[in-house]
Amino acid sequence: MTKGALALLVHGGTENWSPQRWKDRFDGVCEGRPVLLLPDASFDPAEVHYAAVWKPHPGELAAFPNLRVIFNLGAGVDALMADRSLPDVPLVRVAVGDLTGRMTEYVVLHVLMHHRQEPYLRQSQREKRWAPKPQWAANAVTVGIMGLGTLGADAADALRRLGFRVAGWSNSPKQIEGVTCFHGKLQLDVFLARVNILVCLLPLTLNTQQILNRRLFEKLDRNSPLGAPILINAGRGGLQNEADILQCLDDGTLGGASLDVYATEPLPVDSRFWTHPKVVLTPHNAADTDPDEISKYVAEQIARFEAGGALDNVVDRKRGY
Amino acid sequence: MTKGALALLVHGGTENWSPQRWKDRFDGVCEGRPVLLLPDASFDPAEVHYAAVWKPHPGELAAFPNLRVIFNLGAGVDALMADRSLPDVPLVRVAVGDLTGRMTEYVVLHVLMHHRQEPYLRQSQREKRWAPKPQWAANAVTVGIMGLGTLGADAADALRRLGFRVAGWSNSPKQIEGVTCFHGKLQLDVFLARVNILVCLLPLTLNTQQILNRRLFEKLDRNSPLGAPILINAGRGGLQNEADILQCLDDGTLGGASLDVYATEPLPVDSRFWTHPKVVLTPHNAADTDPDEISKYVAEQIARFEAGGALDNVVDRKRGY
Ligand SMILES: NC(=O)c1ccc[n+]([C@@H]2O[C@H](COP(=O)([O-])OP(=O)(O)OC[C@H]3O[C@@H](n4cnc5c(N)ncnc54)[C@H](OP(=O)(O)O)[C@@H]3O)[C@@H](O)[C@H]2O)c1
Ligand SMILES: NC(=O)c1ccc[n+]([C@@H]2O[C@H](COP(=O)([O-])OP(=O)(O)OC[C@H]3O[C@@H](n4cnc5c(N)ncnc54)[C@H](OP(=O)(O)O)[C@@H]3O)[C@@H](O)[C@H]2O)c1
Repeated sequence: MTKGALALLVHGGTENWSPQRWKDRFDGVCEGRPVLLLPDASFDPAEVHYAAVWKPHPGELAAFPNLRVIFNLGAGVDALMADRSLPDVPLVRVAVGDLTGRMTEYVVLHVLMHHRQEPYLRQSQREKRWAPKPQWAANAVTVGIMGLGTLGADAADALRRLGFRVAGWSNSPKQIEGVTCFHGKLQLDVFLARVNILVCLLPLTLNTQQILNRRLFEKLDRNSPLGAPILINAGRGGLQNEADILQCLDDGTLGGASLDVYATEPLPVDSRFWTHPKVVLTPHNAADTDPDEISKYVAEQIARFEAGGALDNVVDRKRGY
Repeated sequence: MTKGALALLVHGGTENWSPQRWKDRFDGVCEGRPVLLLPDASFDPAEVHYAAVWKPHPGELAAFPNLRVIFNLGAGVDALMADRSLPDVPLVRVAVGDLTGRMTEYVVLHVLMHHRQEPYLRQSQREKRWAPKPQWAANAVTVGIMGLGTLGADAADALRRLGFRVAGWSNSPKQIEGVTCFHGKLQLDVFLARVNILVCLLPLTLNTQQILNRRLFEKLDRNSPLGAPILINAGRGGLQNEADILQCLDDGTLGGASLDVYATEPLPVDSRFWTHPKVVLTPHNAADTDPDEISKYVAEQIARFEAGGALDNVVDRKRGY
């Protein structure tokens, strides 16, 4: 018996999302199972039991009448949730240690860059000025993490170990060692009131759209040695109001920002983010998904599913994440 | 009975080493003990039992006939050891959690900057180019730490937790969880052969002078995704051959360097380090000593010493650290 086919729909654009690269990895782990790289006219859509996708076009997945599971090849499912014709089968998102580790690297790097006055130090180097400024220790700064899921909880732990005071905010109540946890809309303001460096690792849903706006930035604490608070967003561009961020950087409401995600990607050349002296910008590469790790993860889940086991990290369609 | 006086000799130059700042902190913790800020003609040198110093001039300490302990206000005692008239009393160096934490921040920041291709990403931002490059995970890179003392061991642990492979090298054999440890001259080459990012946290002694030279750089591993290896030196400038570093950066033997310390400090304006595109330069501020923490540490040690207890972190004059 041939196994039900796995269809790959990968529309990333960057080198990491080269479709052939993903096909090679899936071929390697899907013994005896056809792996189809779409579009491909030579096969019967009814044979497809599984789809592994990154940014599929709306409607693409509805073409498979016998689809059993959709695997999203990244952690964020916001692009998928926007597809109103998405088949009503379990939707699994990626949550593997490799991806989590990469995001924690990004968060630790960018928190440390702002904390240790890197923009100032690079400027001094360019000006050939030997001018050390007093430097505070990590425990003089509170990092606040919005979103305490797979990624947020791991980043919180790494920052705490480095000596930062860490607070976090999520939907439901949490208990994380050494992290002061807040949850829900009602506790958002008390959370913000203690935060000096705000790290956003929320999913993009109807409830979180443009949550990073001037009203929120004005609630952050300004009494740390950093002075004005810092924003780090590695969630999704839709979480941020970009005009507000620029204005708040200009008028000193924010002291700096590290951004990995944008309302429009690639970031348009005329965006002021490129040239703003207070912005540290990365091209949505905070946490690339590694095809080796992810293809293994998907193959294992399929094997478990076909043996009657439960799938991990199934998205709650109502919550949207 | 008045307590024996504590003399402060602080010649740092930068804001952190403002002598009055240090006197204020010591006054706060030395109840009933005179704290003298030198030079000060109004007191009898025979009253001085303790000296707390940073870069004292050679000969300065020999002026106190009743000196019992010298406290060095930083972790490195190389400047003191160069003083041939240094009184033969216990010499204590600073090893406090605050200083260690700051150095670990520096090391983690600079390892992550090179690992995550920050120089390339900043260049792309300046050129308004959205051009993510493939990014490897931390476990594709081996960080090698020269010096597994108070600072090196802590940095090793933090890097290991972030997912890096970590190796270390010291004088005597060590066992550190998750860190592959080497020691002594005989094992230096095997250590270097596996290292992609070399972090130097050695003390400057007769045995370590200019240990960071071309011969050593050529022994580092070039087979990681980084390609050419990276040098990070936060020990002392005397550990490095600066002409070799520049040549090795130019000819590709080294792929990049983060330097906090230099043969001459402040770094002369005509040094090529300022403008070299592969150099990330900081003005010897990797781990400032915090006067609050350090004055407490010294006062506690004096109290213990006067109660007949042992001093911590006494320098071995023969080893030179
Ligand atoms: N830039 C990149 O390269 C990159 C890479 C990967 C992922 N991401 C982004 O990172 C996001 C988070 O990933 P993850 O794996 O950590 O997701 P996750 O495990 O689902 O965690 C999401 C967290 O956000 C909280 N949350 C969701 N809606 C909320 C709301 N309205 N109010 C308060 N808290 C809310 C959740 O609270 P509960 O725990 O109470 O449910 C949870 O703690 C992804 O959705 C993706 O967009 C970006
Ligand atoms: N840039 C800054 O802001 C800054 C701030 C503070 C300190 N520092 C520098 O950092 C240095 C290290 O500080 P620390 O507190 O970690 O010192 P430490 O506790 O004395 O540790 C020194 C380490 O180096 C090893 N070592 C010494 N000589 C060696 C040799 N010839 N070959 C191999 N290994 C050798 C020692 O080996 P064993 O363990 O076997 O003895 C030990 O592991 C200081 O000396 C200072 O120069 C710089």
